[in-house]
Amino acid sequence: MRRWELAIALDPGRELPLFLQLASAIADDIRSGRLKPGEPLPGSRELAAHLGLNRNTVVAGYDELVAEGLVNAKRGGGTFVAVPMPLPPQPPAAATQMPTYPLLPPLPLPATTGAPAPGTLILSNGAPDARLFPARELARAFRRAIERRGRVLITDADACGHLRLRTELAAMLARTRGLAVTPENLMVTRSIEQGIDLVARTLVLPGDTVAVEAFGYPPAWSVLRLAGAHLVPIPVDSDGMDVDALEALLEKHTLRAVFLTPHHQFPTTTVMSQARRARLAELALTRGFAIIEDDYDHEFHYEGKPILPIAAGAGRANTVYVGSLANLLAPGVSSGFIVAPPPVFVRLQSVRAASDARGDAAMECAVAELFEDGELLRHVHRMLQVYARRRDALADALTRYLGDAVTFHLPEGGMGLWARADEGINVARWSRAAEQQGVRFVDARRFDLRQQSQPFLRLCFSYHDEAELNEAVRRMAHALPHGRQIH
Amino acid sequence: MRRWELAIALDPGRELPLFLQLASAIADDIRSGRLKPGEPLPGSRELAAHLGLNRNTVVAGYDELVAEGLVNAKRGGGTFVAVPMPLPPQPPAAATQMPTYPLLPPLPLPATTGAPAPGTLILSNGAPDARLFPARELARAFRRAIERRGRVLITDADACGHLRLRTELAAMLARTRGLAVTPENLMVTRSIEQGIDLVARTLVLPGDTVAVEAFGYPPAWSVLRLAGAHLVPIPVDSDGMDVDALEALLEKHTLRAVFLTPHHQFPTTTVMSQARRARLAELALTRGFAIIEDDYDHEFHYEGKPILPIAAGAGRANTVYVGSLANLLAPGVSSGFIVAPPPVFVRLQSVRAASDARGDAAMECAVAELFEDGELLRHVHRMLQVYARRRDALADALTRYLGDAVTFHLPEGGMGLWARADEGINVARWSRAAEQQGVRFVDARRFDLRQQSQPFLRLCFSYHDEAELNEAVRRMAHALPHGRQIH
Repeated sequence: MRRWELAIALDPGRELPLFLQLASAIADDIRSGRLKPGEPLPGSRELAAHLGLNRNTVVAGYDELVAEGLVNAKRGGGTFVAVPMPLPPQPPAAATQMPTYPLLPPLPLPATTGAPAPGTLILSNGAPDARLFPARELARAFRRAIERRGRVLITDADACGHLRLRTELAAMLARTRGLAVTPENLMVTRSIEQGIDLVARTLVLPGDTVAVEAFGYPPAWSVLRLAGAHLVPIPVDSDGMDVDALEALLEKHTLRAVFLTPHHQFPTTTVMSQARRARLAELALTRGFAIIEDDYDHEFHYEGKPILPIAAGAGRANTVYVGSLANLLAPGVSSGFIVAPPPVFVRLQSVRAASDARGDAAMECAVAELFEDGELLRHVHRMLQVYARRRDALADALTRYLGDAVTFHLPEGGMGLWARADEGINVARWSRAAEQQGVRFVDARRFDLRQQSQPFLRLCFSYHDEAELNEAVRRMAHALPHGRQIH
Repeated sequence: MRRWELAIALDPGRELPLFLQLASAIADDIRSGRLKPGEPLPGSRELAAHLGLNRNTVVAGYDELVAEGLVNAKRGGGTFVAVPMPLPPQPPAAATQMPTYPLLPPLPLPATTGAPAPGTLILSNGAPDARLFPARELARAFRRAIERRGRVLITDADACGHLRLRTELAAMLARTRGLAVTPENLMVTRSIEQGIDLVARTLVLPGDTVAVEAFGYPPAWSVLRLAGAHLVPIPVDSDGMDVDALEALLEKHTLRAVFLTPHHQFPTTTVMSQARRARLAELALTRGFAIIEDDYDHEFHYEGKPILPIAAGAGRANTVYVGSLANLLAPGVSSGFIVAPPPVFVRLQSVRAASDARGDAAMECAVAELFEDGELLRHVHRMLQVYARRRDALADALTRYLGDAVTFHLPEGGMGLWARADEGINVARWSRAAEQQGVRFVDARRFDLRQQSQPFLRLCFSYHDEAELNEAVRRMAHALPHGRQIH
């Protein structure tokens, strides 16, 4: 112990083993510079005597430091503080990196709005209320999945998702949605967006024409276009996509696919009528195009009997079905899924294998456990009650504070309400004024394929509770242009 | 308690609250059919008296059953077993679903080999050894991430990855690999495959020409082709990609990009020389094409000084860098990353936002914690020692059991060894015979862009320990064609 004095009291009572306490103390001295690169450590026998430790404890501590790369054991004997790798030359500032090849433009997506001011109430967000998410149950299930199935679970994985979750999802989708699905033609996805993207690349070739709802979901348009699709808009009304307009389009165009959200149309929330569903299915089969059915929030239906997906009906052979439990659990949890007829599934599987070869098997098993022990079903029923109450509270507040400034139908399901602003109200300007009042909502222009100014608003009721929704609409009323304010 | 007798002894000593014990017992009776749909439950007062419970306990139990959708509370009073939704008509067998539109073929990927017979040793798998994965540390970090940051963490997410992990990764990549990277031009990906896929769609338009290594990584080829690229192969030798051949190609073709694995070339394991790197960078800048640098196992370098990526050198403005910690942690963990110059990052971000809008923020925080507490660095140093020993054990066994049947250079890094079979040995046939002997390896044909028969083998040493590797090569020797067996 000549040049260097170990500056720590080792404590046999601590939970950390003595050899790790020792390694940690030496590591601190190396990092602080008290021990210099290349400097020898005391011999293990010498240090053991000095500290009153068993020599094996010191040897184990030194081994740990070798494993951490902090010291080297020389072959001839002796342990030395490692000499760090020379630092690479300082990279130039990132800003100067301008490629010499032509850049492609970013995809057209709604501009991301900045972070809201603290206290802002958010009606623009259709995400579930994080406060209701069964986070503890999921974290517990995740830990159990790792503990029981352990390492194999994390390394072993299937591009289609863990069989345990596929089995649960297939059973649930067959039982509650009437789908022709087994674990063999169901794929678990990271997110519904990944699902739409994989399906687009499974079905679409560059130059193909794909029909979409004129009001719709911009990320879907982006990935369809990225796959090479030319998009044509079909109007939507209170019965969903206008299938007569689609039929007229078929006179002029050969369609590769139709992408739609028939259950709770996004963003207008309308439910597609049975007659239109049947006619769409017939057209798809006879004219030879695919239906991509995005059923993103199937569970959240508050009125009347459940409506079965198009994929459960006569057009099922031509329908690829995309969904997710993200709105039920949480957007970060791997719980999207695709159901496709077996002949289509072959290519789908290859696209997934190439682009993201395996899922998160541990998390998939954790979600499967929520199914198996009934937690998921209980959660569905609870959330249905919660969101139905919030929908009603939002509708009440709109009537109370905004009167005839907006008109709307109570949505049968989903997490948002679609309202029309009275003529003379500039919705974009109202939205900007509302942000100043501490409430965020977006005008409908961003959901319009043609990006035209629109007299509509989509207001989400999932993210806040009843009192917050009431306050949000009160703030909206304060932001109304003067002369239009009712209170 | 007229028609129905509750068949359970409630136990106040159990961990489950009494009202949940009660709800669970009634739920069991509903599911078993002892309680029929529409049947009334006893009044809460009556049942409380019968069971000797507080009436509030019974009310809470009934509320739970309502939440689970198993019973309905009628407005006029009284609680009734719920009448289940009518079952949808039985879907037809999946096999009959043949779409009426033309199907696209699956992507060309190596045929997935079936599950090996029990006890088979796997030399075809470059995955890390699951037994060495810090599963407990990660599961603990995941639980802590959920507990501390909770629900917000799971719902809130960023398409580029959680800032905490981006910060750690950027610091690590700048420090150890000399990259010009900040959290603002780094994206966390689910997997390295997702990274390559996103970069392909950021850079490539249909009809573009992309040069790839003639021996290379088939999933990368698939996603490049899916983005519309026409691929041309460039030979590789012991100094990596042959840049003279690339230069000759530039006389005939305009290149959009070059995709390569310069650090430990996949599958041949060679390290690209400094001279070739410099020449490639110069060509990229002057001729205006992008370099996609796949540095999939940077950490695993066992000999000599570290080699900095192309993205850290003079060609950085034209280079997009893709990597992953999957081989260090486990393939199922979200730990891939992309570093791109800011002008390229804009489109990259939009492609990610459209195709998979958010990552797994909870897992990203868990991985960040492994960085923060030093666990990751310790793990790197341990794995380096383990894999270097395994590499040497595989090489020893090849020399011992196979003699001159194969020739190879000891790889400086990576998780596999590239060997040439002596002429006269049909590698594909040898591989099939080896499977019968309980060892799996694949011939190199699957890594050849032109799918030609090849006298090469790639043997991975990461997945098994030294004794297993020795036994695997012994079995390979037994499967050698007669007359070629040495032992």
